[in-house]
Amino acid sequence: MVTTERKVNFSAGPAVLPVEVLEEARENLLSLGNSGVGVMEHSHRGKEFVAVLAEAESGCRELLGLGDDWAVLFLSGGASSQFFMVPMNFLAGGVANYLDTGVWSSKAIKEANAFGQAHVAASGKAGKYAAIPTTADYKPGARYTHFTSNNTIYGTQWKSEPVVDSPLVCDASSDMLSRPIDVSRYALIYAGAQKNLGPAGVTLVVARKDFIASGASNIPPMLQYRTHLEHESCYNTPPCFAIYVMSLVFKWLKNQGGPVGIARYNEKKAAVLYDCLDSSAFWTTPAEKASRSLMNVVWRLPSEELEAKFVSEASKAGFSGLKGHRNVGGIRASIYNAMPIEGVQGLVEFMKDFERRNG
Amino acid sequence: MVTTERKVNFSAGPAVLPVEVLEEARENLLSLGNSGVGVMEHSHRGKEFVAVLAEAESGCRELLGLGDDWAVLFLSGGASSQFFMVPMNFLAGGVANYLDTGVWSSKAIKEANAFGQAHVAASGKAGKYAAIPTTADYKPGARYTHFTSNNTIYGTQWKSEPVVDSPLVCDASSDMLSRPIDVSRYALIYAGAQKNLGPAGVTLVVARKDFIASGASNIPPMLQYRTHLEHESCYNTPPCFAIYVMSLVFKWLKNQGGPVGIARYNEKKAAVLYDCLDSSAFWTTPAEKASRSLMNVVWRLPSEELEAKFVSEASKAGFSGLKGHRNVGGIRASIYNAMPIEGVQGLVEFMKDFERRNG
Repeated sequence: MVTTERKVNFSAGPAVLPVEVLEEARENLLSLGNSGVGVMEHSHRGKEFVAVLAEAESGCRELLGLGDDWAVLFLSGGASSQFFMVPMNFLAGGVANYLDTGVWSSKAIKEANAFGQAHVAASGKAGKYAAIPTTADYKPGARYTHFTSNNTIYGTQWKSEPVVDSPLVCDASSDMLSRPIDVSRYALIYAGAQKNLGPAGVTLVVARKDFIASGASNIPPMLQYRTHLEHESCYNTPPCFAIYVMSLVFKWLKNQGGPVGIARYNEKKAAVLYDCLDSSAFWTTPAEKASRSLMNVVWRLPSEELEAKFVSEASKAGFSGLKGHRNVGGIRASIYNAMPIEGVQGLVEFMKDFERRNG
Repeated sequence: MVTTERKVNFSAGPAVLPVEVLEEARENLLSLGNSGVGVMEHSHRGKEFVAVLAEAESGCRELLGLGDDWAVLFLSGGASSQFFMVPMNFLAGGVANYLDTGVWSSKAIKEANAFGQAHVAASGKAGKYAAIPTTADYKPGARYTHFTSNNTIYGTQWKSEPVVDSPLVCDASSDMLSRPIDVSRYALIYAGAQKNLGPAGVTLVVARKDFIASGASNIPPMLQYRTHLEHESCYNTPPCFAIYVMSLVFKWLKNQGGPVGIARYNEKKAAVLYDCLDSSAFWTTPAEKASRSLMNVVWRLPSEELEAKFVSEASKAGFSGLKGHRNVGGIRASIYNAMPIEGVQGLVEFMKDFERRNG
């Protein structure tokens, strides 16, 4: 067994997973339980994997409080595939409202315009996406309204859902299950797994069944949500192992007190880092305070040279993945659910020392 | 560490993986090498995963003998997504020849008809798909010709490529890299990983770059092969862990002598089972001898009751996954690359004993 000490991994995604989850997955690679067949080697139609899938679904239902009128789907292709699947299913030449809060929203808007009109009801672009818009100009009669709940690159996050009168669709890839949400306000929520939910390779989609039923049926079956609902995510072979790991993450999350418990932890964790950033002019934070993300904390140092030195020295001290997104530069610490508070505290100690030496 | 004895797993897919591969993956779950970050937790743009991806690609290139005019893509969505992606990219209202050799070919045909005319140049349907067609009525001027090299449900396999004068597209999901192929005869080959290549969740696509360039550009970027070629399979976050395991399978396969070595082994392995089936009228094999698959061996017993008893007793004896596909019933043993010959020999011993007791 490799016994290398684990780094504190601030990667924006794929990202750190709970050690308990990794250890349980490791135990089951050559034999899932006492089945004598590894977790990756079971038929997706065999009773062992059917049980894994059922556990993943019930875990998700419990954590989100979903009733029978909601579907839980395990798809593939990432959030990037949802950018076109959503308009392909629901836009049909009509108008949808889109809230532009950064790179990922912009991509979703671009894709939607191929299927109808993606009306940008509000955009943070003029303000370099430093803030979540507080007003919006919604088109009436929209098929849906799309927003990105957390913006990994600019480090901003919606504190509550936009208030709209069309079905609300959310890309929650980077803050899904990091806090409680009122699902009754949504029609469809999607999330690539590789931030808070599991490894890359599975996309969680939860949606109201009636919304799914309203989707297009003249598109390839694999691209219709209804296909995956009817076949319980097994129309074709699903990404079994990624779903398995997600089921372990759901179990772990329940042990953390579910969305309520983890939200309290995430707030505390983010406060440790933001308090440090706010304590000195050595650090600057581009995101406006009211819009700050609890998942991705971005900041700058006095120069790009110091930023490079910071990343390099942090890496040597055991803190990895701190380089900001190539679009914006600077520093980014992604502190998803699985990041322990001790990791953030350690980073803050390193930061204070770095400031003493370079400030 | 779980020490449960492993069953001999004849599942049609997801299927058995080499023990060496599983053990290496297990070693790297909490830290990839000495990186201090688990293989599922590395950023797909970090140097560690970039190296994994490069190793997977070079392994594939070496095993298939691909030149620079070929692209190697790691996609998601399974072969089922290729069923529509191929015509969406290349049919454009035109005609393509399709060779119908079973359930998966038929699904591909159905999807293609939404984008143009899928002309069925030959079909084994009238003969219950017991044989690979030996003649075909190809439409001239076809955009491409599509065939399924191995048919998991009916247990048949093309012994050599159909000879055509349009670009040849192949669904090789269930026999990819199980034998040498002359890639110069193909334009595009796709394969879901979960039979011979790795875990479910990644689809290998190898294609001539000029064929990719000829594809449609008025479809969502994620559905254009050129997007994934231009971005080296990292347009969005790829299914990193599945690609990692595939890279280990490629390394393992090279150690088995590559396609030539494994083909010899697969022939020997299949002969052990077919010899047993041919030795007694107790067993009947629906697939015609000339069309028999070296990957999926299907057979019947004198009654469905005996078949159920066979599956049940085999399972108790440590042989799992032998139930035939629900469409056709009977017995099926999938003996992909990673199935050791000792597994097949053990099954044959069990079969001879079962026949003695029930014949």
